[in-house]
Formats: sequence, C-alpha cells, structure tokens
Amino acid sequence: MEHSLKEFFDRALKEVSLDCTVFGFHEGELKVLLLRWKGIDGWSLPGGHILLDESVDDAANRILTQRTGLDDVFLQQFYTFGNVNRYVYHPEKELLEKMETTFGKGFFDGIIFRRVVSIGYLALVEFDQVQPTPDWFTDECRWWSLADVPHLLFDHNEMIDRALKALRQRIRNQPVGINLLPEKFTMPELQRLYETILGRQFDRRNFQKLLMSYDILERLDEKRIGAANKSPYLYRFVKEKYERAAAEGVSFTM
Amino acid sequence: MEHSLKEFFDRALKEVSLDCTVFGFHEGELKVLLLRWKGIDGWSLPGGHILLDESVDDAANRILTQRTGLDDVFLQQFYTFGNVNRYVYHPEKELLEKMETTFGKGFFDGIIFRRVVSIGYLALVEFDQVQPTPDWFTDECRWWSLADVPHLLFDHNEMIDRALKALRQRIRNQPVGINLLPEKFTMPELQRLYETILGRQFDRRNFQKLLMSYDILERLDEKRIGAANKSPYLYRFVKEKYERAAAEGVSFTM
Repeated sequence: MEHSLKEFFDRALKEVSLDCTVFGFHEGELKVLLLRWKGIDGWSLPGGHILLDESVDDAANRILTQRTGLDDVFLQQFYTFGNVNRYVYHPEKELLEKMETTFGKGFFDGIIFRRVVSIGYLALVEFDQVQPTPDWFTDECRWWSLADVPHLLFDHNEMIDRALKALRQRIRNQPVGINLLPEKFTMPELQRLYETILGRQFDRRNFQKLLMSYDILERLDEKRIGAANKSPYLYRFVKEKYERAAAEGVSFTM
Repeated sequence: MEHSLKEFFDRALKEVSLDCTVFGFHEGELKVLLLRWKGIDGWSLPGGHILLDESVDDAANRILTQRTGLDDVFLQQFYTFGNVNRYVYHPEKELLEKMETTFGKGFFDGIIFRRVVSIGYLALVEFDQVQPTPDWFTDECRWWSLADVPHLLFDHNEMIDRALKALRQRIRNQPVGINLLPEKFTMPELQRLYETILGRQFDRRNFQKLLMSYDILERLDEKRIGAANKSPYLYRFVKEKYERAAAEGVSFTM
C-alpha cells in the first residue's frame, strides 16, 4: 500500500479511471457487486485507476480479480463516461474531508483532480464462485439485487443502467449464459436468465427450440432431482461451439 | 489559436483524447477521412483533446463539425484505446523534433505526456455533404478508399479495423444507410452499401424482401434515369420509422 495518494499517482493515470459493472445471477435475480466506502457510508462500483505500465484492459482484469478472486471472466468495455460533472465529490468537498479523517491529514496533498473520465466495463460472473473483497478505501463488498441498488457515488447508477442496456443488446447477437450459470443447469433456469436480463417472458417451447437451434447446448443423461415439478434434464454448454457462436453471432429474437 | 501547447492544455485534458473514424460511401466504396500532419508527412484520423468544460461526446461532435462542416451526424463511441505504447511518437522523438521545427522551438515546453488514452468514435456521413477541413497541425484533409489507407500514426490503423467491425456488428441490429446515402437512392445502391460494409454479396430478391420487411423504406414514383439497365425506382427512408427501427432493433441475417 502507498503512504499517500500522490505516491500512487506518480505511477498511475490521473485523468482516466475504469469502473466494472459485475453481474451475477442468483435465485432467479440479477445481482450487481458494490463496495461501501470507508468513513462516508456511500456505495460505488468496483473500479480504480490505470497504472502507467498496464493497458486499460489489463487494469480492468487486475481490478476484477482483486474484487472477486476470479480471473479469465467475461469482461468487455461498453461505454466511456465523460460528462463534465460526473466526478464531482458527493456531496462536493465533503467526501474529501471525510476521507482525510479516515486516511489521515495530508493524504490528498499534491493531487489535483481537474476531471476524471471513466471507462465502463461489463463483467459476467458465476455468482457462487465470487469471493467479494473490498479494496483499501472500502470496508464492505457485497452483492445487491438490481432492484435494491441504492443511490450510488458519482455517476455509477447511470453506469449500471447503461451496462444493463449493453447486456440486452449483446444477448440479441451472442449467446449469454456460460459466464453466468453453473456448469450444469436446466432449461427453465436458462430461460429464467434470459427473461431476467430482458425483462419479459417467453414461451417455453419456442425458447427451447431457438436455443437448441444454436447448436451450443448438450443435454446430459442427468436430471435435477428434487425440482418442484417433474425432474428436468440438465444441460451444459459445449465450450468450443459456444465460443464459435459468440464470435460468429446468433440472432435472438422472440 | 494558442501560442503554445501548454496554454491549450491548461484548459484541456492531457491524458484523454478522442479519435473519429469517419466513414463515407462513394462510387460503391467505403471511404475514410484522414489528415496529413504538417512537417512530418504522416497521416492520422481526425481527433483531439477534450476541453475541461465539455463532455467527451460534445468534444467528439465539435471535432467532427470542424473537420467536415456537418453537425447532427451519426456519431457513436465504439471502443476506448488504452494500450501502453499506443501513443509513442512515430518514430519515437522524431515526431516531436519535426513538430518543433514546424511550430517553433519551445512549443512543447511545459507539456509532459506520460500516456494518452483515446476514445474511439464511429461517424457515418453523407460523402457529398462533407467539406474536408484540416486543423492547425495538419495541412491536408481528404477521403481515402479503405483499401488504400496507408500506415497511419499511432494506433490509428487498428482504430479503423475496430470501427469497421463495430459497424458490421451494428448493421446486424440496426438499419444503416440514412447517414451514408443521399436522400433518394435505388435498391441496388442500398444493396451495394450493405455488401461493401459486410464484404459479401446478397441475392437481389432476398435483400429487397428483407429490407422492405423493416417497414422503413418508401418507394417513390420516380426512377433513376440513365442507369445502365432498365431505370430502377428511387427509394427514401421514412425518418420516423427508421429511427423507431434503430431504437427497437432489426435483425439483418442473410
């Protein structure tokens, strides 16, 4: 850890940061990973600044690994946020003062942020695999249901809105699911994922027919025991076929 | 005009720039707008830095208007370029020295670029409407056929590659054409545009059938006189319907 922010920013970009909207899927709901800032009780997305010797994509991977314990996850840029007032402190100046109380007087000396532009990344992760881990200026990292997300610091509510739109756009051209579901899942679980992301219901038979037409799913000789109705078959994605379909594109229109 | 770069960067972001890949369509070819730098005979995309009091989207619009004479054109972010070595001078240091020869000794004093991240914008414009206009450190601005684009400064060849991929991705979900074609056009001209962007040929009847199914085109009671074969009908986009289809999405799969 650095002893001052100045020390950190001697080897990091000041005017550019990145923020990750990390989506997980749990109990039929989309969840998003948030951090609570020390001393000010405000929540934000996971993010950070880019070191001078790393690319922005590498920085995003580093930060995501630090917050989740995972590497090699689905992580893509979706939009760069550059409004003039997006990074004003919240409430103005108060954040700075409260952080000096927490981190010590002089912690911010020598740092002038004129403005910060932030690159928005969208991450899809398997909920059960994540170990939410706060960073040095936050004291809690946990999942929130999308419906319960509080008023966040900076423009992070807008970031989540745009990330969700980007995900909805993507699901129309690319298979989605290998990153969000456990290895084996039932067709109703996959359907519920699509319905949750798109915010609408689909006919069971049409959904199954369309998804099977992509030729990316393999039905296993196993059933989910203990399901509410008759035991449904388990499926899994065939990784190579999934990746080919992701690269070539599919058309999800129902 | 500023008397030094330092004066300019007192009111602009240093570590963030933007670059626009401006596509036009002319004589059955995709064209891209490039600028030749004074004194060094290297070419680049139009771009620039963001003023402290303007959003990045406003900056992109400002720069595009300055280079083309157009406003209110199709302009969207597609990727932010942040590799470590993307902004090294080309060839290293030589650019700086040559520019000092052109702009005067000391022009760069007080400016330290540790690194610059650039936001890539994709613009679609009507070829005939553009008045290519150089900026203060370039002496020529003109269209290049995509196939003839030279080795560009910085990572701008990669930017064009990615912009074209983004356009191809977009054409699968959104109608494309209102920005690239003149008001009235023939069905073969529209088909040629799609074929050029996607780099493949389509069956004439299937193409017409699919495009008409979007309900965004109006066939006029006019024909193109003097065409090679029988005079083809002219069409135009119905703006409100086109915009609705762009927002709701269409599926172009042939």
